[in-house]
Amino acid sequence: MIRPAETPQPPYYAVIFSSLRSRDDGRDYSQMAERMVELAAAQPGFLGLDSARGDDRFGITVSYWRSLEAIAAWKENAEHQEARRRGREDWYESFRLHIAKVERAYEGP
Amino acid sequence: MIRPAETPQPPYYAVIFSSLRSRDDGRDYSQMAERMVELAAAQPGFLGLDSARGDDRFGITVSYWRSLEAIAAWKENAEHQEARRRGREDWYESFRLHIAKVERAYEGP
Repeated sequence: MIRPAETPQPPYYAVIFSSLRSRDDGRDYSQMAERMVELAAAQPGFLGLDSARGDDRFGITVSYWRSLEAIAAWKENAEHQEARRRGREDWYESFRLHIAKVERAYEGP
Repeated sequence: MIRPAETPQPPYYAVIFSSLRSRDDGRDYSQMAERMVELAAAQPGFLGLDSARGDDRFGITVSYWRSLEAIAAWKENAEHQEARRRGREDWYESFRLHIAKVERAYEGP
């Protein structure tokens, strides 16, 4: 069952990645996306991840991290760097990334 | 064309709403969702909004705001309060909301 990531008590950090996929799809993309989730989850300081993409090719992935240092280390991961390069060149028509400090969180209903 | 919201230079705030929709769909929901976007966009301090939901009923909406005061005022909006009540009772199987201060942002490719 898919549910929102079970994040701890704030403060922690969120990386919000909003993107429009390119029209030309590639099997490469799904493989990469799965692999990145797997890799991120194995990084120190990883707290959780939520992801959604609609039929309009627009998607949002939010990953949660213990610290800015943990985010910086993930950015330096070699496989992640290669995925980011492919993303810029092939996979995304446009994207925007926000790094934000979570101050409050609650769940429901 | 759907693109990530064109947000200004940080700092500003993000409200990250991750949710799993209930299985029983209602036309009410789509109407409410559209109306909430319209209403939010008319609130003082609103900076933009991104939203995606996949076939698995899991979705993420991120709205961006100038300040915590702007977010508090939106929370108090009467129509929004009614929508939140319906959300808790009828529309969402589970949800999680994060309020976060955006410290850095960039766009691409």
